[in-house]
Amino acid sequence: MTYCVGLKLDAGIVMMSDTRTNAGLDNISRFRKMFTWDVPGDRVLVACCAGNLSITQGLLSRINQAIARSRDDDRVETILNAPTLFRSAQLFGEAMKDVQARHRETLQAQGAGADASILIAGQRKGGEMRLYLLYSAGNFIEATPDTPFLQIGEHKYGKPILDRVITPATPMERALKAVYLSMDSTLRSNLSVGMPLDLAVIPADEIRFAVQRRIEQDDEDFAAISRGWAEAIRDAFETLPAVGEA
Amino acid sequence: MTYCVGLKLDAGIVMMSDTRTNAGLDNISRFRKMFTWDVPGDRVLVACCAGNLSITQGLLSRINQAIARSRDDDRVETILNAPTLFRSAQLFGEAMKDVQARHRETLQAQGAGADASILIAGQRKGGEMRLYLLYSAGNFIEATPDTPFLQIGEHKYGKPILDRVITPATPMERALKAVYLSMDSTLRSNLSVGMPLDLAVIPADEIRFAVQRRIEQDDEDFAAISRGWAEAIRDAFETLPAVGEA
Repeated sequence: MTYCVGLKLDAGIVMMSDTRTNAGLDNISRFRKMFTWDVPGDRVLVACCAGNLSITQGLLSRINQAIARSRDDDRVETILNAPTLFRSAQLFGEAMKDVQARHRETLQAQGAGADASILIAGQRKGGEMRLYLLYSAGNFIEATPDTPFLQIGEHKYGKPILDRVITPATPMERALKAVYLSMDSTLRSNLSVGMPLDLAVIPADEIRFAVQRRIEQDDEDFAAISRGWAEAIRDAFETLPAVGEA
Repeated sequence: MTYCVGLKLDAGIVMMSDTRTNAGLDNISRFRKMFTWDVPGDRVLVACCAGNLSITQGLLSRINQAIARSRDDDRVETILNAPTLFRSAQLFGEAMKDVQARHRETLQAQGAGADASILIAGQRKGGEMRLYLLYSAGNFIEATPDTPFLQIGEHKYGKPILDRVITPATPMERALKAVYLSMDSTLRSNLSVGMPLDLAVIPADEIRFAVQRRIEQDDEDFAAISRGWAEAIRDAFETLPAVGEA
């Protein structure tokens, strides 16, 4: 399993992903699920992947091979030269369809799942910030002010805190706290989501990554938030009045 | 969908269930999912049902028909005259197998699900308190001191607070608060779980229901807990330190 979350706020984009993959319960590995592209001054892009790892890796190979080919042949369309972020998302969608067409039938014949989903976010100079969620069929939806965050993978445990806190106007500091807590709740409750984490922050209209880092198991910030939240929840529980039944 | 939770504590048994059922997204109804039986001084039993409603209703009909028949013929074995709670759970299991055998194939041929699960709890005079989770196949597991609560239906949203609070030694007052919050979290996050709620409390070794009531939409206790928790979570969030990225 996997948990990835993306926020599109007035203040910028935040993306966080875990790194645990599992084939069954007894084959657990660590794979990066967050990938970033950066054309200084022109555009920044970040993608987070969930689902069948062979599908998402195959998709990323196609995306990156196109970028490599475009260095010799500028007629090759890529996510980095596409005229809009929307068109970049379409290129992810075309790569998804391509990989699904290649592997889905045989995967399903073996009883395996071919589903995959990808969060794609970024900004192009002169364009708006965008956050898309791409599905297995190659179609995608976009985050809007009504729903400024999108999640893939094991989304349930981490959703309540985002529902309570995140609006488009949420400042970056609060948003990061909420994203840390959203991931912390998921890590606590689902063994198939695991540290380390990857975090990317793209401030609005700056066309650059302000943060792009791996959060390791022993990260002090993350541990402080996690411990502080556990204590705060415990305190909150204790101070709630008893219910009438008791 | 459904959310039902059962606790087996040193202090007694707590069961809570919602009442919302849905066939698809546009056919939502209210059905009681909690059923109680009470032979004064001899035994108390409570069952909460999730899954295909025709399956669980059919199962309960069989259980109750046996009880009715046993009034005329004391050789009929029922959940109320079985020598142990374990045997009562087996009788639920046999009824489950019977209903599944009757309907599963045709349900699946129509693309519908026949899965159902039932929490069964109670105590017999001279016996231990028991809490079982019965599956579609008629097999069941029992709550133990390591895992003193069992959930059926939409279990994810309501699990974290139980994980944090519930041990076998948890006093009834704290346990009720945790169960209220567990249900509150589920109601907030999943539209397919809805008020009113049913609550049953069986104090240890008293062979009686101390509480057996419906919690309606306008219940003041529930509203106070729900509101208090929302405020406490918001306060806890505000007082947590900012993360380093911000």
